[in-house]
Amino acid sequence: MRLGVLISGSGTNLQAIIDACAAGEIDAEVTVVISDKEAAYGLERARKAGIDAVWLDRSRFEQPSLFTAAILETLLAHGVDLVVMAGYMRLLGRAVLAAYPDRVVNLHPALLPSFPGANAISDAFEFGVKVTGVTVHFASELFDDGPIIAQEPVRIGEADTLDTLEAKIHEVEHRLYPQALAAIAAGHVEIGEDRVVHIAPRA
Amino acid sequence: MRLGVLISGSGTNLQAIIDACAAGEIDAEVTVVISDKEAAYGLERARKAGIDAVWLDRSRFEQPSLFTAAILETLLAHGVDLVVMAGYMRLLGRAVLAAYPDRVVNLHPALLPSFPGANAISDAFEFGVKVTGVTVHFASELFDDGPIIAQEPVRIGEADTLDTLEAKIHEVEHRLYPQALAAIAAGHVEIGEDRVVHIAPRA
Repeated sequence: MRLGVLISGSGTNLQAIIDACAAGEIDAEVTVVISDKEAAYGLERARKAGIDAVWLDRSRFEQPSLFTAAILETLLAHGVDLVVMAGYMRLLGRAVLAAYPDRVVNLHPALLPSFPGANAISDAFEFGVKVTGVTVHFASELFDDGPIIAQEPVRIGEADTLDTLEAKIHEVEHRLYPQALAAIAAGHVEIGEDRVVHIAPRA
Repeated sequence: MRLGVLISGSGTNLQAIIDACAAGEIDAEVTVVISDKEAAYGLERARKAGIDAVWLDRSRFEQPSLFTAAILETLLAHGVDLVVMAGYMRLLGRAVLAAYPDRVVNLHPALLPSFPGANAISDAFEFGVKVTGVTVHFASELFDDGPIIAQEPVRIGEADTLDTLEAKIHEVEHRLYPQALAAIAAGHVEIGEDRVVHIAPRA
């Protein structure tokens, strides 16, 4: 399975995925990393791992649909089977979702449907929940929506600050996302008619 | 601390609270159980434990405010310090909340703010989340809202049905609610200015 990873930032989840592929924990390879930010350190991580690193400058495209088309073209040119959003801070265009039905996955640092949005960790902390977590899900046309593949809870204790909570969330992310991708690559993940995801070894 | 427990049904959480008080795990006693349903088995549980059991027939009150007044009168007549909603399926009237500021607690069978409402367990199951749970919170004038005191996650696995999930949720409820009430009775629970609840031993 050939993975195309979309990033906007430092790419720590990208690194976890690259490492898990290299270790044989995911039966897949990252064939391209695409960033909408030139300065995203994840591009450097890709280059260091010998993976094509592509910066697509949103400001160079006159319309959102042309930017989406450029992303899709890059994915298709690299023979990508599964699109992996890893800290990509934009809504993915419809054309990509249409070309990859139920083949675009996203990571969210909260237990969806609680705390969607770009500030999920601090939103949960300030709300005062005692349990938050991490979600891996198939992407839809809405932000932080779509069938849930895997979730793991993270407790917020009295000793936690926003910093310690962020560290705990990221630690879980770096474990859960590769696990979920491994299950997909192994063919164990199926979406039922009710849109509920089932994970089971193929018979 | 004197507890007044509001129920509408079988009262399994009421029983867990009665048992925990009897065992000395909660430094409190249940002084009255109030039900809006005559057939609620929880009333029988109260009588068996020697606790005053009061059925308030909603249909006998011309206005909601008079029904609320009857609840409040019953609580005050029993010297209740803390109002405990345990499967009480109505919105509590404002007059009770005003008389017991931050002294009304509720139990919800999901990880709030996810899945508020009367069908939280099946809503979570049908949504396809992989982690749900139980929340104990202070009540507000809205359903399933207010500062969160305690939460515990419950995983939904491939082998789970709605029945097995309900059993797991109820098992957690019967443990988590008495624990939270014990912390309140011990004076360990404080609501911060930001409305976030802190649980810590008093200095």
